[in-house]
Amino acid sequence: MPAIASLECSRCHQHVSADLPQTVCPHCAGSLYVRYDLDEVKKNSTRPTPGGLQNMWRYSAVLPDVEPVTLGEGWTPMLRSQRYPQLYVKEEATNPTGAFKARGMSAAVSMARHYGLKKLAAPSAGNAAGALAAYAAAAGIEAHLFMPRDVPFANYLEGVAYGAHVTLVDGLISDCGRMVAERKDAEGWFDISTLKEPFRVEGKKTMGYELVEQLGWEYPDAVFYPTGGGVGLIGMWKAFEEMEALGWVKPGKRPKMIAVQASGCAPVARAYREGAAVSKMFENASTFAAGLRVPKPYGDYIILDVVKESGGTVIDLSDEAILDSLLDWARNEGLLLCPEGAAATAAYDHLIKTGFLKPSDRVVLFNTGSGLKYVDMIAEAMGLKRPAENESPEEKKYPERSPVGGIITPV
Amino acid sequence: MPAIASLECSRCHQHVSADLPQTVCPHCAGSLYVRYDLDEVKKNSTRPTPGGLQNMWRYSAVLPDVEPVTLGEGWTPMLRSQRYPQLYVKEEATNPTGAFKARGMSAAVSMARHYGLKKLAAPSAGNAAGALAAYAAAAGIEAHLFMPRDVPFANYLEGVAYGAHVTLVDGLISDCGRMVAERKDAEGWFDISTLKEPFRVEGKKTMGYELVEQLGWEYPDAVFYPTGGGVGLIGMWKAFEEMEALGWVKPGKRPKMIAVQASGCAPVARAYREGAAVSKMFENASTFAAGLRVPKPYGDYIILDVVKESGGTVIDLSDEAILDSLLDWARNEGLLLCPEGAAATAAYDHLIKTGFLKPSDRVVLFNTGSGLKYVDMIAEAMGLKRPAENESPEEKKYPERSPVGGIITPV
Repeated sequence: MPAIASLECSRCHQHVSADLPQTVCPHCAGSLYVRYDLDEVKKNSTRPTPGGLQNMWRYSAVLPDVEPVTLGEGWTPMLRSQRYPQLYVKEEATNPTGAFKARGMSAAVSMARHYGLKKLAAPSAGNAAGALAAYAAAAGIEAHLFMPRDVPFANYLEGVAYGAHVTLVDGLISDCGRMVAERKDAEGWFDISTLKEPFRVEGKKTMGYELVEQLGWEYPDAVFYPTGGGVGLIGMWKAFEEMEALGWVKPGKRPKMIAVQASGCAPVARAYREGAAVSKMFENASTFAAGLRVPKPYGDYIILDVVKESGGTVIDLSDEAILDSLLDWARNEGLLLCPEGAAATAAYDHLIKTGFLKPSDRVVLFNTGSGLKYVDMIAEAMGLKRPAENESPEEKKYPERSPVGGIITPV
Repeated sequence: MPAIASLECSRCHQHVSADLPQTVCPHCAGSLYVRYDLDEVKKNSTRPTPGGLQNMWRYSAVLPDVEPVTLGEGWTPMLRSQRYPQLYVKEEATNPTGAFKARGMSAAVSMARHYGLKKLAAPSAGNAAGALAAYAAAAGIEAHLFMPRDVPFANYLEGVAYGAHVTLVDGLISDCGRMVAERKDAEGWFDISTLKEPFRVEGKKTMGYELVEQLGWEYPDAVFYPTGGGVGLIGMWKAFEEMEALGWVKPGKRPKMIAVQASGCAPVARAYREGAAVSKMFENASTFAAGLRVPKPYGDYIILDVVKESGGTVIDLSDEAILDSLLDWARNEGLLLCPEGAAATAAYDHLIKTGFLKPSDRVVLFNTGSGLKYVDMIAEAMGLKRPAENESPEEKKYPERSPVGGIITPV
């Protein structure tokens, strides 16, 4: 594991030391990237070989030199579609807490413990809160979570069960973020918000290393990434840069990065279409893809840069299109994607139809979490009632086909 | 992959051919084991080396020679406890459909497709139904699921979303099993019930191969297995037998097998205490560990044999003890176990206290599925209300500590 050379601002490129915990750039409030001496890394290590650690810490050569707080995150399967031979699903549901957020939190909480921080706080659309609560519990650190009141119930339960301090807010993640910012100094909380500390990106970047290793150290043609806060997309781009500097992958053919949003909350898609360098607050954000309900991502400027540099695009899909794709994949592939993952599969169909991609293009699609964390939302979208409500004699008389589901035979 | 030599009855030891699909022994209705020519296997293959397939099909040398229907099942992490250095959790939540049932169904549905079967039916306490629905969807085969009406909602949703035919029954898995048995001939269903066809055991046995490989091809001192139908315990014992015959592990030091049940449904524990060779139907079975609600497992005689031969034991825990252990592991280890997994952790505590095991014994504990599939049951057991019900002004006034949960601050 390498020493951290410095933290570099993603906007003004000034450097800060990582000897003490840092949040954002002290000069311009940009997000900070962790920088290593990659020449040293290149000298002292090679890319991983088959076997070895079966979690994201197999990339310890490019992660901070600390004792990890680990629950087995990362090294998730790449599943080949049953129908599209060039389409791979990176199945992040198999992470601890059932979502990709585990990667970022493993790295960030490891560093927090290393720095001796005692109280962490974060706003969350849901899954980040669950992950922070779990890793904080494993590390013996206090966690303070702020989530929208209508967050998936599984996320609320996770927070409480892991023993975190949970506040449900009548508002969105942006309102949650404001509360953390207002209270953190008085409470002594370290703010572990998306892109407001440098290490969640370090954890998430392992998705980039993994997908390239799992394709035999080759880039795919495109990567579909459901984009709320966008940390994974940003992290993967950083990974590609590092891998090229280390000689782990041949430079020059990076994948098109496709940022996928929900039409009910599409600030980055809107900015992309308008050619803007940053997004505007998306008013009245609403979608059943809870993780995409981020009305103004802090790293919008980085996401837009990466998408353009990669030759990718940003698209947004309606909740109807997302649900259709979710059920299509459940019935025809045996995968219960999360709504955010189904936004990516819907986007794939769309970009094949428009000709932006060809069926022969090798593509990796992120299913960022387990559909099981969204049971209520998926059921509501499908029109599936809970069994107890299903018991009227009328409903019992005939086998019924739920509006969009399988065949239910009441008995 | 080896040819199947024959199917051998676990009770009367007569052999049947596997050329056509088989259910139970035609002579005595015992469960059938798949037998290979292990001398041939030994000649033609070695135990897996690091790297290779990252799912249960890495053990193809000892699995039927068919094209697998796979969703990435198996090769799950062994997590070392943060508190007990000799305690490992085999984290089966990372399987497709969030539970260990994926292993058995991957094998059984692969064989069903191989045999050309078109309609599969199974009774289930919940997770087997979800897994069957997913693998049937992936294979393009019809699935007919029978579950108790009060099954975890996630399991019901899975069945419907994957496009299966779902029947909710006012009763237990035993009632569901009866319905499948009564209707299967008229409907043309192949009955894929626990231990009534030979291949779910083949899938589940990979848990035994994995835990030994992940411990460096050595046995642990004990294995804790939450026991509903008991297929995994039976499968692991078969795996140990095969591994010894193949020279993959040193014979003679097999682990004590600890079968864990819930006191609200403990037919095997009761039979074990009474010294009986089989269990009796457990009346009024009730526990929030839904997967343990199997009032009379079909393979009870095998489970009891294995436990005795191994020098293990069968114990049962109250729902209160299970919930306490579930929350203990959430708060102190960052793992949200399923209730069945928490029965195993509670059993560990108990057997350490009684001196049956020492803290220095190396132990593997199965968390058979994700706690996220049991959100409603865990919330109810914790006394955690859904946020919408939490909004009365009284409750909003003060931060409140939920009876057994973390700290909730209404805003």
